[in-house]
Amino acid sequence: MAGAQPIEYSQAGPEVRAVFDDIKHTRNIPDVNNFWKVIANHPPTLKRTWESLKGIMAPGALDPLVKEMLYLAVSIAQSCDYCIASHTAAAKKRGMTDEMLGELLAVVGMASETNRLATGWRVPVDEALR
Amino acid sequence: MAGAQPIEYSQAGPEVRAVFDDIKHTRNIPDVNNFWKVIANHPPTLKRTWESLKGIMAPGALDPLVKEMLYLAVSIAQSCDYCIASHTAAAKKRGMTDEMLGELLAVVGMASETNRLATGWRVPVDEALR
Amino acid sequence: MAGAQPIEYSQAGPEVRAVFDDIKHTRNIPDVNNFWKVIANHPPTLKRTWESLKGIMAPGALDPLVKEMLYLAVSIAQSCDYCIASHTAAAKKRGMTDEMLGELLAVVGMASETNRLATGWRVPVDEALR
Amino acid sequence: MAGAQPIEYSQAGPEVRAVFDDIKHTRNIPDVNNFWKVIANHPPTLKRTWESLKGIMAPGALDPLVKEMLYLAVSIAQSCDYCIASHTAAAKKRGMTDEMLGELLAVVGMASETNRLATGWRVPVDEALR
Amino acid sequence: MAGAQPIEYSQAGPEVRAVFDDIKHTRNIPDVNNFWKVIANHPPTLKRTWESLKGIMAPGALDPLVKEMLYLAVSIAQSCDYCIASHTAAAKKRGMTDEMLGELLAVVGMASETNRLATGWRVPVDEALR
Amino acid sequence: MAGAQPIEYSQAGPEVRAVFDDIKHTRNIPDVNNFWKVIANHPPTLKRTWESLKGIMAPGALDPLVKEMLYLAVSIAQSCDYCIASHTAAAKKRGMTDEMLGELLAVVGMASETNRLATGWRVPVDEALR
Repeated sequence: MAGAQPIEYSQAGPEVRAVFDDIKHTRNIPDVNNFWKVIANHPPTLKRTWESLKGIMAPGALDPLVKEMLYLAVSIAQSCDYCIASHTAAAKKRGMTDEMLGELLAVVGMASETNRLATGWRVPVDEALR
Repeated sequence: MAGAQPIEYSQAGPEVRAVFDDIKHTRNIPDVNNFWKVIANHPPTLKRTWESLKGIMAPGALDPLVKEMLYLAVSIAQSCDYCIASHTAAAKKRGMTDEMLGELLAVVGMASETNRLATGWRVPVDEALR
Repeated sequence: MAGAQPIEYSQAGPEVRAVFDDIKHTRNIPDVNNFWKVIANHPPTLKRTWESLKGIMAPGALDPLVKEMLYLAVSIAQSCDYCIASHTAAAKKRGMTDEMLGELLAVVGMASETNRLATGWRVPVDEALR
Repeated sequence: MAGAQPIEYSQAGPEVRAVFDDIKHTRNIPDVNNFWKVIANHPPTLKRTWESLKGIMAPGALDPLVKEMLYLAVSIAQSCDYCIASHTAAAKKRGMTDEMLGELLAVVGMASETNRLATGWRVPVDEALR
Repeated sequence: MAGAQPIEYSQAGPEVRAVFDDIKHTRNIPDVNNFWKVIANHPPTLKRTWESLKGIMAPGALDPLVKEMLYLAVSIAQSCDYCIASHTAAAKKRGMTDEMLGELLAVVGMASETNRLATGWRVPVDEALR
Repeated sequence: MAGAQPIEYSQAGPEVRAVFDDIKHTRNIPDVNNFWKVIANHPPTLKRTWESLKGIMAPGALDPLVKEMLYLAVSIAQSCDYCIASHTAAAKKRGMTDEMLGELLAVVGMASETNRLATGWRVPVDEALR
């Protein structure tokens, strides 16, 4: 009873191929990674996830590198090993240096610590922050 | 059996006052917020937390606004209501617009969704990402 | 310093064997899986966990397949890799099709996304929902 | 520095009104709840979230009540108070009885317990489950 | 659509009363707190939860105060506000001083920070720890 | 794109070596484990984390074994596999027996279960606990 198998382009139906093509074109890469190949087992999820992601991660008020770093921070806080691996790579591709990664991880660690301190000490929200 | 009471400057001993003074001076604010007043119930935690935070959040390879936004993203992923309130305010003070907040929250939501998809589908890490 | 070793039937004392026998009989399986073999290192935990689980997962107002799917959803939200593997298998044994799994994972992902949106946006609970 | 304010229909622009109208029509309700009114502060998030949710929660291989219960289970595991309130109500509207809720909560609690036992005991995944 | 109502002793059936009586007797308290009154809406959950808790929290290889502090640490890590309030009180009743609470919270915060550092840096498990 | 590589003593600069030396001296061990070698990729994080940890885990109102067990409990609740492995070993070194570990894991599991029950049932905090 293994996990779901990745679906390769050659095995994929037209709906899945169309999404794979769009991912490869948008990102200028030769192949999609395992995340897309596995969720292709449920084509509506593949299509909706890609469309949402493409819209959300596009340049806007925040630049794409900042968005990738936010994505990585959340993935660490939620212990998603796959996502940490893939979004560390994606952020590096967009220009995150080792020094930036070091600082990002320090912020994530610090936030995690003070989150628990604020919750554990039952700190009441300040009037000015309500 | 209420939670720990905030410690006001007037009640505080010299060790706590020194930290409060440094926070107020560094941030140019008239008073510290409840987080600091409550953790002042354990002076070593107050001192260590402030010194760590001051070092980590200072300008470096990442600018302070990006750091505040990462802090906020982690606080949402970990459901810390106090921290969400205080770091939303802190990020706004550093220049986060409503549009930037809207995009940040969209990224946090999307990351949270794909974290669970990657984990639930048991996606194997790609060779290239190991 | 490896993790705790699984305890096989042949090595087990009578208290552990009695639980293993009941699991095998109730589920009509030839052997228990590693979860039970490992927690057998602490016999009171083995016994209590099995008795609680047997009671909770029995048919009731919810049918056993729905219960298995709820179990799987929680295990994904909490990033328990072992539990995701074992409860995906258990749900399939009870009739969960690939299409049902695909929809389950979509719901888990969506819930995870809107959980973070509601928390991050600090949405006040509606009067009618209090 | 309060949280984002809910946007009422009367204040909303045409893009937001179109989504509110579709929610009200689809669910046959006189007004949308606070979740939608607050995320309307970022119209692209409102539109995308509603469209994704409408697609995912529609009848399919899983019936809508089961989907609502899965949604609720995830919301509990992730401590989203707003979502617990709103999806408990939504599931009741779709037919969840008090007895079904009692069993759902028992399953969520049990899953949470065994998730931690499996992780804490470092149980190795069985060959047959890989 | 409020949450479930607490069930008072005077309204309770004999099965619930028997559990309430045992809690009051075991803990030597005049009334049970809201946790028990609310889960009494599902009597099998009330009975099983109390019996499990009574067994687990009894003196053993770990003394009851250490167990209460572990309970509190988990409740903070999982953001359960009710449980933080009730287990802080329970630990104080068993002898936890303010200084002990301060140190406990410092450990919880530190663990939370290094958990995220280890995960975010993708630290490989040492041979000796496997 | 592998994760960050561990930094061995022979490759390390003087700032990193000084921290490694202090860890080895304080703990009376011949080498530091991978956690320290990997976070040494960001020397300020290495230094600050070690100094904080050394202070927090020193004997105080709580003895070091209790602190290690609290650390382990949090690491399980947050699904940090590396930390579970390393702090199980550290607690054993400080005297945690198999029986104590069994009880610790039972408490963590139970807390996790009742955390979700309290949250899912939306239990209101008792007057006396506010």
